[in-house]
Amino acid sequence: MNKSSLTELTHIKTKLMRHITIILIFMAVPFIAMAQPGQPVEQWTGKTILLIGAHPDDDSYSMGTLAMLNANGNDIYIAILTTGNVGTQDPDLGMMDLALIRKQEEQAALATMGIPLDHYINLGYDDGMLEYENAKEVVAKLVRLIRTIRPDVLFSFDPGKGSQRWHKADHRASSYLSADAARAAMWPLMFQGQITVEGLEAHTIPEYMLYDSAEEDVNTWVDITEWEERKVEALTKYVSQFSSGWYDYKGPELSPEEEKEVKEQLRGWIHQHQDGVPVEGFRYYTGLPDDLGR
Amino acid sequence: MNKSSLTELTHIKTKLMRHITIILIFMAVPFIAMAQPGQPVEQWTGKTILLIGAHPDDDSYSMGTLAMLNANGNDIYIAILTTGNVGTQDPDLGMMDLALIRKQEEQAALATMGIPLDHYINLGYDDGMLEYENAKEVVAKLVRLIRTIRPDVLFSFDPGKGSQRWHKADHRASSYLSADAARAAMWPLMFQGQITVEGLEAHTIPEYMLYDSAEEDVNTWVDITEWEERKVEALTKYVSQFSSGWYDYKGPELSPEEEKEVKEQLRGWIHQHQDGVPVEGFRYYTGLPDDLGR
Amino acid sequence: MNKSSLTELTHIKTKLMRHITIILIFMAVPFIAMAQPGQPVEQWTGKTILLIGAHPDDDSYSMGTLAMLNANGNDIYIAILTTGNVGTQDPDLGMMDLALIRKQEEQAALATMGIPLDHYINLGYDDGMLEYENAKEVVAKLVRLIRTIRPDVLFSFDPGKGSQRWHKADHRASSYLSADAARAAMWPLMFQGQITVEGLEAHTIPEYMLYDSAEEDVNTWVDITEWEERKVEALTKYVSQFSSGWYDYKGPELSPEEEKEVKEQLRGWIHQHQDGVPVEGFRYYTGLPDDLGR
Amino acid sequence: MNKSSLTELTHIKTKLMRHITIILIFMAVPFIAMAQPGQPVEQWTGKTILLIGAHPDDDSYSMGTLAMLNANGNDIYIAILTTGNVGTQDPDLGMMDLALIRKQEEQAALATMGIPLDHYINLGYDDGMLEYENAKEVVAKLVRLIRTIRPDVLFSFDPGKGSQRWHKADHRASSYLSADAARAAMWPLMFQGQITVEGLEAHTIPEYMLYDSAEEDVNTWVDITEWEERKVEALTKYVSQFSSGWYDYKGPELSPEEEKEVKEQLRGWIHQHQDGVPVEGFRYYTGLPDDLGR
Amino acid sequence: MNKSSLTELTHIKTKLMRHITIILIFMAVPFIAMAQPGQPVEQWTGKTILLIGAHPDDDSYSMGTLAMLNANGNDIYIAILTTGNVGTQDPDLGMMDLALIRKQEEQAALATMGIPLDHYINLGYDDGMLEYENAKEVVAKLVRLIRTIRPDVLFSFDPGKGSQRWHKADHRASSYLSADAARAAMWPLMFQGQITVEGLEAHTIPEYMLYDSAEEDVNTWVDITEWEERKVEALTKYVSQFSSGWYDYKGPELSPEEEKEVKEQLRGWIHQHQDGVPVEGFRYYTGLPDDLGR
Amino acid sequence: MNKSSLTELTHIKTKLMRHITIILIFMAVPFIAMAQPGQPVEQWTGKTILLIGAHPDDDSYSMGTLAMLNANGNDIYIAILTTGNVGTQDPDLGMMDLALIRKQEEQAALATMGIPLDHYINLGYDDGMLEYENAKEVVAKLVRLIRTIRPDVLFSFDPGKGSQRWHKADHRASSYLSADAARAAMWPLMFQGQITVEGLEAHTIPEYMLYDSAEEDVNTWVDITEWEERKVEALTKYVSQFSSGWYDYKGPELSPEEEKEVKEQLRGWIHQHQDGVPVEGFRYYTGLPDDLGR
Repeated sequence: MNKSSLTELTHIKTKLMRHITIILIFMAVPFIAMAQPGQPVEQWTGKTILLIGAHPDDDSYSMGTLAMLNANGNDIYIAILTTGNVGTQDPDLGMMDLALIRKQEEQAALATMGIPLDHYINLGYDDGMLEYENAKEVVAKLVRLIRTIRPDVLFSFDPGKGSQRWHKADHRASSYLSADAARAAMWPLMFQGQITVEGLEAHTIPEYMLYDSAEEDVNTWVDITEWEERKVEALTKYVSQFSSGWYDYKGPELSPEEEKEVKEQLRGWIHQHQDGVPVEGFRYYTGLPDDLGR
Repeated sequence: MNKSSLTELTHIKTKLMRHITIILIFMAVPFIAMAQPGQPVEQWTGKTILLIGAHPDDDSYSMGTLAMLNANGNDIYIAILTTGNVGTQDPDLGMMDLALIRKQEEQAALATMGIPLDHYINLGYDDGMLEYENAKEVVAKLVRLIRTIRPDVLFSFDPGKGSQRWHKADHRASSYLSADAARAAMWPLMFQGQITVEGLEAHTIPEYMLYDSAEEDVNTWVDITEWEERKVEALTKYVSQFSSGWYDYKGPELSPEEEKEVKEQLRGWIHQHQDGVPVEGFRYYTGLPDDLGR
Repeated sequence: MNKSSLTELTHIKTKLMRHITIILIFMAVPFIAMAQPGQPVEQWTGKTILLIGAHPDDDSYSMGTLAMLNANGNDIYIAILTTGNVGTQDPDLGMMDLALIRKQEEQAALATMGIPLDHYINLGYDDGMLEYENAKEVVAKLVRLIRTIRPDVLFSFDPGKGSQRWHKADHRASSYLSADAARAAMWPLMFQGQITVEGLEAHTIPEYMLYDSAEEDVNTWVDITEWEERKVEALTKYVSQFSSGWYDYKGPELSPEEEKEVKEQLRGWIHQHQDGVPVEGFRYYTGLPDDLGR
Repeated sequence: MNKSSLTELTHIKTKLMRHITIILIFMAVPFIAMAQPGQPVEQWTGKTILLIGAHPDDDSYSMGTLAMLNANGNDIYIAILTTGNVGTQDPDLGMMDLALIRKQEEQAALATMGIPLDHYINLGYDDGMLEYENAKEVVAKLVRLIRTIRPDVLFSFDPGKGSQRWHKADHRASSYLSADAARAAMWPLMFQGQITVEGLEAHTIPEYMLYDSAEEDVNTWVDITEWEERKVEALTKYVSQFSSGWYDYKGPELSPEEEKEVKEQLRGWIHQHQDGVPVEGFRYYTGLPDDLGR
Repeated sequence: MNKSSLTELTHIKTKLMRHITIILIFMAVPFIAMAQPGQPVEQWTGKTILLIGAHPDDDSYSMGTLAMLNANGNDIYIAILTTGNVGTQDPDLGMMDLALIRKQEEQAALATMGIPLDHYINLGYDDGMLEYENAKEVVAKLVRLIRTIRPDVLFSFDPGKGSQRWHKADHRASSYLSADAARAAMWPLMFQGQITVEGLEAHTIPEYMLYDSAEEDVNTWVDITEWEERKVEALTKYVSQFSSGWYDYKGPELSPEEEKEVKEQLRGWIHQHQDGVPVEGFRYYTGLPDDLGR
Repeated sequence: MNKSSLTELTHIKTKLMRHITIILIFMAVPFIAMAQPGQPVEQWTGKTILLIGAHPDDDSYSMGTLAMLNANGNDIYIAILTTGNVGTQDPDLGMMDLALIRKQEEQAALATMGIPLDHYINLGYDDGMLEYENAKEVVAKLVRLIRTIRPDVLFSFDPGKGSQRWHKADHRASSYLSADAARAAMWPLMFQGQITVEGLEAHTIPEYMLYDSAEEDVNTWVDITEWEERKVEALTKYVSQFSSGWYDYKGPELSPEEEKEVKEQLRGWIHQHQDGVPVEGFRYYTGLPDDLGR
């Protein structure tokens, strides 16, 4: 290292020095991780936010919060691992049809939330097969994304109890892969090619908003009263995923009656938590990604 | 799809339409899943039931219930993933010997419960190695089984807390693989070859009886008082797996003394739960397989 | 088997017969596994102990206990899966540099505890990548180690709730791989080549001290009051893993001021549990490895 | 083995003894393998024949020979590894459409050759992806097929020079997987589960007809003059794979003009070898499958 | 497919129709593939050219040709799979150092040939490990590259005899992965996510220049007399890969004496073929990528 | 690297410097590799020799040569990848039985050649399954072996044309894995853990004797007239692999009649090449392992 002029790397050092008050962090010792955001989520502004999910609609858990954050001047990116190309019972839809439909639905939902379409990234994996893809490669791609977007906050399926008990395999996979990627992204010596030949820099995500957590793990409830209708509107875009569209997709438009019924049901579902106040619950975490699961 | 005559697929649609009252199901939203069977297990009849386990004796958790269900006119299939061919400390038994012995033991136990021998399926994997097999292929095989047998109820190791904490690796694998297969089986676009070239149809399993659950997760206790002796009799067939047979297998017959002692111990073990009433505990679940783990 | 002279195997049988009072063990039935050691850890002597961890410093959870056990006449081996070669933010350290530094740190810590350097085994995997290595091969190596060292007690990351929730991926991997290896090691028919061509024998580890458990799972607290300073001294060796060394490694020596500050912080951390009494907490388990996770 | 009554296995021994004149075969020594069939292919009768290919049309290399053999009283099975579900440039065809079309085409071609439809097996893998499937599992399935059908002759892509040089990846994969399966099928101790729990027996295929060989490796030319028109007729069934059907599939029927033109081109292609005599060339091999590639 | 408006896909059809004179191509029939370019390489202009190699210096086989093509108005892209980060015997160079050095060397060589630096793509894999990476993922990345750059000509290690016999494992891997990617890129139904969510289109590469072929397979010799000095100059940039730099790297500059000696040796090596005329030999191929290896 | 005292690595540099006359070797340029040993094999002495094979009898190709080299004062090691535990048609032999039998046979053969038993290494993989093991891990083990034994000559299955055409899958695997390991062993930055934590050093094998080559690739014939009987004697030890032992193993001793007949056949086979002079043929190669396959 003393020989080649590694100027590309040296400024990383300077940058890292700012954090130098942290002591003893990488020795294998337990920390108290459960916490609430120092600054209420409602007051966040100027942050770069990355959400990672498995399917084009996994932002549903966070839509109110995302719409609010977007309105408050935060920069939001949505990265989805699969195209959602098997989620239908309509025998007239093939995989490519469904992928295109779900891409359009996701884009429509994002537009409703005010998120720019070029902030939507889809990694293109086949729906339902994430568990069988090569984990090292998926993590490498997420690490690249993290090192490029350099988020202040990561929204992810909670890799805690919520995803340990099996439910949807892709969700479980998404939670673990995201957490593994958050960890790996901070080490310059991991996935070195991204740093040496692509010119990226290691990046440590400091804050986490974990969604779909076990009820008892939720430590942060975001009041989305003002954003409820926006969320209902956005959810209504996923026509292929509910009602008759799931069995017999007839295009992105609902009939007025069907739209009315769907929205009412959605409102009921949104209100089901916290005594009628519409909220979204998260497990907030701040600290090194290594302890994210505690 | 508008071109080729896909008559093989179109009747699936008609069939699915019957379920059309379900709304919003595939959007990523939480449901309250914990429940008890609408109809008591003791009254079930005419159902097709599939049990998936890792070893030829993993039906032990459910033997009383299975004997009862069989007597009540339900159709029971037992699918075991491995041959059980390493589970011995007897140095005189090789892998093929043990596989044959355990096959005979399992068949004897099934006969005791009244289950026809051609309802026993063994996928032939090596014992203790399930964790290292190709998950996609094992799931594909289980999906084929589900699409062929088309069960109303799946008995499986609980992919919940019970199998998250490590115990027997094959059990953990069995629980996850079964749940992943139950999920995949319902999507016509997953493992398409089974549908296009084999002529099978997608199948959604509506009810689940999960065994070996964490105590706090059990929501359904089946009283097996009447079936206790049948269960004891069936368990006694697994000679290679207990007592002296584990160290020094001498054939499928026990001496009268040994048989007496073994049965007494088995009765004691069966009685250990629920104040002396012999029961078998399950986590019952009904709903889409995607939320099975909640 | 009746033909070839398998004298290498027959004495295993005699040895196993000593355990013959165990009945019914391998049938798939639940046991109450949570327990405390019959003999207090403080009184253990003459035992062979193997610790498996992921990084050269994962013995930190157990250093007081290990120092005590070593002093009391037990034989201690430390097996670490990775070289720890990516755990730095110092841009001037390459992977080989860091591996060498961490090897020296680990050896210095072991010397402080009195553990002979030739009792340190490192399997040489790359740090942070354990999750992506071939599980069957890693387990095979750990099985070989267990069959060679033949420990009475295994210290391991707890493959229970503590490592199910994601934190450091290598720790999670280490906990599962160790448990899987403990299980496989007892079966002569698994990883047969070690027995037939290497001449090893199957080995069943009877006792387990699981570290980094969930708080509620800890059932055994070891008072390390007498060994606290030894532990502080040992921890101080991991210079690359704390303080300024993590950003800008300047060699194995700390300045007197830095050393003083580090040690004070370490003492504070050690005291944080159990009302000021310095302890190390474990989930103790005894029984067949198959039920280790209960 | 001396203990359990392994009557299922003992008659294998008697059967194998018939071959006992072979000496020294499994020592690692080279043999002269290149040969011609003792009995001309034209005179074969009463043989069980298995063809393994990658796509539904890979029997094209052998159609004249197969039609002749079928007419001469041989029993022919066609096993295809993939559904052929990506081989189109028609944007209106999805994967399931194409799989169904190619199944119908293959069945129509087989009917033309007189081969019963239930002698067609398709393993259902995705077209173009064979190289990335789990080789051990694919081989296991082919071994099961071989042990069930128990062929006297295997038709397969030549795993010799012809498939070493890269052309179609699925063909290369098919050649190696078939050869590996032929080898494994003969050993009772490989894929034991098929023997112990499924009750199959090991099987050694004695003769091989390898197609798509390198020109210089062909040692057997079969004169198909009498079967030429049958072959042309069968080839004409693969409408999706040629002419306009490849870009714009309009159903299984060709217009009279198109059919006439296609058949003429096919005749021209069939005549291109051996001075205008229509032939099919093979590398014939007889001996242990281990030396198949020489 | 009849339902959703797949306008993104339909224009592909129109484009493909131009090739419609091709008949019978995808039936499994042999073609005579060995050929020479219709238009001499020296006259090529306006073509888009993609070279795929394993290491940053694998363009060495083609440097004269590339320099000429670049000067003649063709658009050249160089894609290298690994960073070349282990190819040194200098103990003072770590992996990141070497990756940076070799990136600079490659860029310097490209500049010498006149190729723009932003036409250099490096996939960032570790040197020497390509054989062990996930083939499906590497192919997917190359397919994306092909569908993005849409080359008229692919330069690649020859996946023929030259790379079948083992030499450098990365080269062998590179040849097969490139050929597999060329094939996959043409099918819209393969790696669908690139088409549905990324908006790319399938692409069929029509011409191939395969380098490092077996001598007897070379069918096209390009006279690089005019470009010889340019090639020597470019080769001289790879200082870390020859002479003293391989053992003891002292920076990108050579001493005048060393430079002189190196260049003389390089000239000698370039002249070694074809009676003193400096040439570069290729196996040229045109046709569907499926038959590339013949 | 300028910071830590990497004295362990620096003497590698000095050692490598001795080879510094080599120029330009790692640029991707073809060399003429086919050659004959500078010093006739019959005159070799003081060399360290490593043979790598797949099964316990794969040294059969080289036994005369090995016996001669051993007698001439060379140090010979035999490394076999599998235990050979499926190579029987005797239904009374299990996998462990056969592994022990073949170990004894190999040891007996080595004793006949005068090779010390502790020079025999067996990696313990299952016979017939090498193709499905994790290549990276197998190569890592062979690299460790090479870096420990530090051979001057490697005997290996020829990874050239001989093993490209499929014959025994394990042989093909063995040839590629050995060649890949030879290559990797020379790079300090590959499999770093062996160097940093195990303290081994990189090693470049300079000479290769490749056995089981294609006839036209053999460039070195070793006259084993004097060692013919020794070879016959050694081959006779593999009783389980020939004659009646393959179907019905009766122990390591042959009857006098059987022994006589076997030896005569073996002599006939040994004499089959080179006009009655007993020889062993090899493809000799010297140079960097990267070009071994040319």
